[in-house]
Amino acid sequence: MPESTAVRRVPVSVAEPYDVLVGTDLLRRLPELVPNPQVALICDENVAAALGAGLTELFSRNSRAFEMLIVEPGEASKDVSRWAALLEHLAAQAYGRDCAVIGLGGGVMTDLAGFVAATYLRGVDYYSVPTSLLGMVDAGVGGKTGLNLQAGKNLVGAFWQPRTVIVDVDSLRTLPQRQFQLGAVEFFKHALIGLPEQLELLGSRAFSRDADSELLAGWLRDNIAVKARIVAADERESGVRAYLNYGHTLGHALEGASGHRLEHGEAVAYGILFAALLGRLRGLADVTPLAMQLLRYVQPAPLGPVALPELLPFMARDKKNRRGVQRFVLLRQPGEPVIVADITAAEIEAAWLELRRLVEGLDWEASN
Amino acid sequence: MPESTAVRRVPVSVAEPYDVLVGTDLLRRLPELVPNPQVALICDENVAAALGAGLTELFSRNSRAFEMLIVEPGEASKDVSRWAALLEHLAAQAYGRDCAVIGLGGGVMTDLAGFVAATYLRGVDYYSVPTSLLGMVDAGVGGKTGLNLQAGKNLVGAFWQPRTVIVDVDSLRTLPQRQFQLGAVEFFKHALIGLPEQLELLGSRAFSRDADSELLAGWLRDNIAVKARIVAADERESGVRAYLNYGHTLGHALEGASGHRLEHGEAVAYGILFAALLGRLRGLADVTPLAMQLLRYVQPAPLGPVALPELLPFMARDKKNRRGVQRFVLLRQPGEPVIVADITAAEIEAAWLELRRLVEGLDWEASN
Repeated sequence: MPESTAVRRVPVSVAEPYDVLVGTDLLRRLPELVPNPQVALICDENVAAALGAGLTELFSRNSRAFEMLIVEPGEASKDVSRWAALLEHLAAQAYGRDCAVIGLGGGVMTDLAGFVAATYLRGVDYYSVPTSLLGMVDAGVGGKTGLNLQAGKNLVGAFWQPRTVIVDVDSLRTLPQRQFQLGAVEFFKHALIGLPEQLELLGSRAFSRDADSELLAGWLRDNIAVKARIVAADERESGVRAYLNYGHTLGHALEGASGHRLEHGEAVAYGILFAALLGRLRGLADVTPLAMQLLRYVQPAPLGPVALPELLPFMARDKKNRRGVQRFVLLRQPGEPVIVADITAAEIEAAWLELRRLVEGLDWEASN
Repeated sequence: MPESTAVRRVPVSVAEPYDVLVGTDLLRRLPELVPNPQVALICDENVAAALGAGLTELFSRNSRAFEMLIVEPGEASKDVSRWAALLEHLAAQAYGRDCAVIGLGGGVMTDLAGFVAATYLRGVDYYSVPTSLLGMVDAGVGGKTGLNLQAGKNLVGAFWQPRTVIVDVDSLRTLPQRQFQLGAVEFFKHALIGLPEQLELLGSRAFSRDADSELLAGWLRDNIAVKARIVAADERESGVRAYLNYGHTLGHALEGASGHRLEHGEAVAYGILFAALLGRLRGLADVTPLAMQLLRYVQPAPLGPVALPELLPFMARDKKNRRGVQRFVLLRQPGEPVIVADITAAEIEAAWLELRRLVEGLDWEASN
């Protein structure tokens, strides 16, 4: 009975406020949720193959001007020439200022489609429809859009808030289990920094793509609300938004140093353990047991032979740093993040060695 | 005595307010006005040849990290690949979020540099330093940035407000007289929609690049304040900002239909006469004598054989239109613009024929 199912609403109170709608069977309601006279939906070939015919039929049944713009799957589509080609297409088809761009898919699609919407005619309506868990709890919400450069990832972009974020939990059913696990890292990161109640899901393993729809929708609504609250307090990432970066200082460094051999979720899971160890060294609440639980849940690829001196230059370039001072997000206790700017080189080394020691056991577990 | 010369300040009260500074000898004060630790200045080869050595010396005397990024002059630089190359350069040189991008030059440079600043790392500080009269009164102020696509001009972009707009009237001295005349069209457009007192400058011909610096700076300050007021009331161009489009409905159509053989200022001067004639047909104040004075001041290239049916499709695509209804900005009287949405095809034709008749005399004048 999809019609009777409650749609959960998470308001995001930025300068131009919008809602995150969380529910089931929401894709079928896209023509109603996106009322613009012209609609361009950007997605990758896989999503198009799975959902394209149905969506086209839905919009045409509602006599709506609708077009799917299909790009190759994967990070390579987040580039300048793909973006420019999409803009040329919109212009050639005379899309007007009142058109809508929908981004349907994972983080790559919502980043790309969002930047198209942010820059076409100096900005048109954008609707974010994340289909991966990572997109639902992270990339799809918060207004970050962007492309990669040759020099690095996400170096081009704009803050452009969507009109609505549409989270259809049914999309999770077809997500590979591994993608769900990796996305869960950001889910539990939100729990750690702002919703400790949800940490019990980590122990129970109830949190899975096969969980009951209503349960999933409720968990996601509450979890997304953590990010919504932080984004509303700091739309352009100058203050508390750094909390969302919990675990990402070492995480990004591991991604960079491994040439992105480690997945983002894997690297951040290691990074959360690193932050937990730094916190323990500082005498803050000891959240390393939770971080270890998360690592076991995620089962990341082994760290490999990476050494601290390779990681330090990446950490030195971290966006949280100010005037050359390294800044870490730590937890005073679960749900209480704090920014710490005086971590010493000795503390970093001690935490790194302890992390190495702890995860060697994990590597062993995984290989058995 | 440059130090004792008053710098005039026009506050622009948008969401993140900024000032337009108008004065003399301001370029020499750039290192002080742009306090960021890393500064990239984007300009064209001509500006670099004239000012590059001096500016580099100024910043180096202040021990400041400063770099000039030089592009070819002309509209062709407002394209995607030029923009991407500039971003790759900033990234490769590890410009941080606290860097500044300065756009120095005419409208092409401020549009390009502004879009670089709007999109690098999702937005860094932008300083607009227009050197042409058009840039000073129009393109340099208001937060519009952008690039051209193959499909058309200014189809990509963002609204990105500068930190400060720096208007050094000394830059006008080296501007070709013709460029000054063309820029004066937007100056007098501002006078028509919001500062009728300045219309007497049209008769006196006192308004020239060789006028006294203090006079020029005062006139520019008052004139820029007209645009600042309108932009502050409508940062994202959804309402009264349409007033700034006075004369541009026919103007843009003439540019388009002529394949940009007519300069923007020439086309808008014709467009202002067209709007004046529509207003007279509607029984509003008759500003056609002022419009004719402006045409004589600008001495535009002849209209040539263009016919109304060629212009109508361009007018139909005008950005002021809503739901297919053509909207014109007319003047109830000088200083009192009004948006009119019910102009008939018959009125458009009558105004066009009258314009043709009036400017035939001008063509004749110019050829004598």
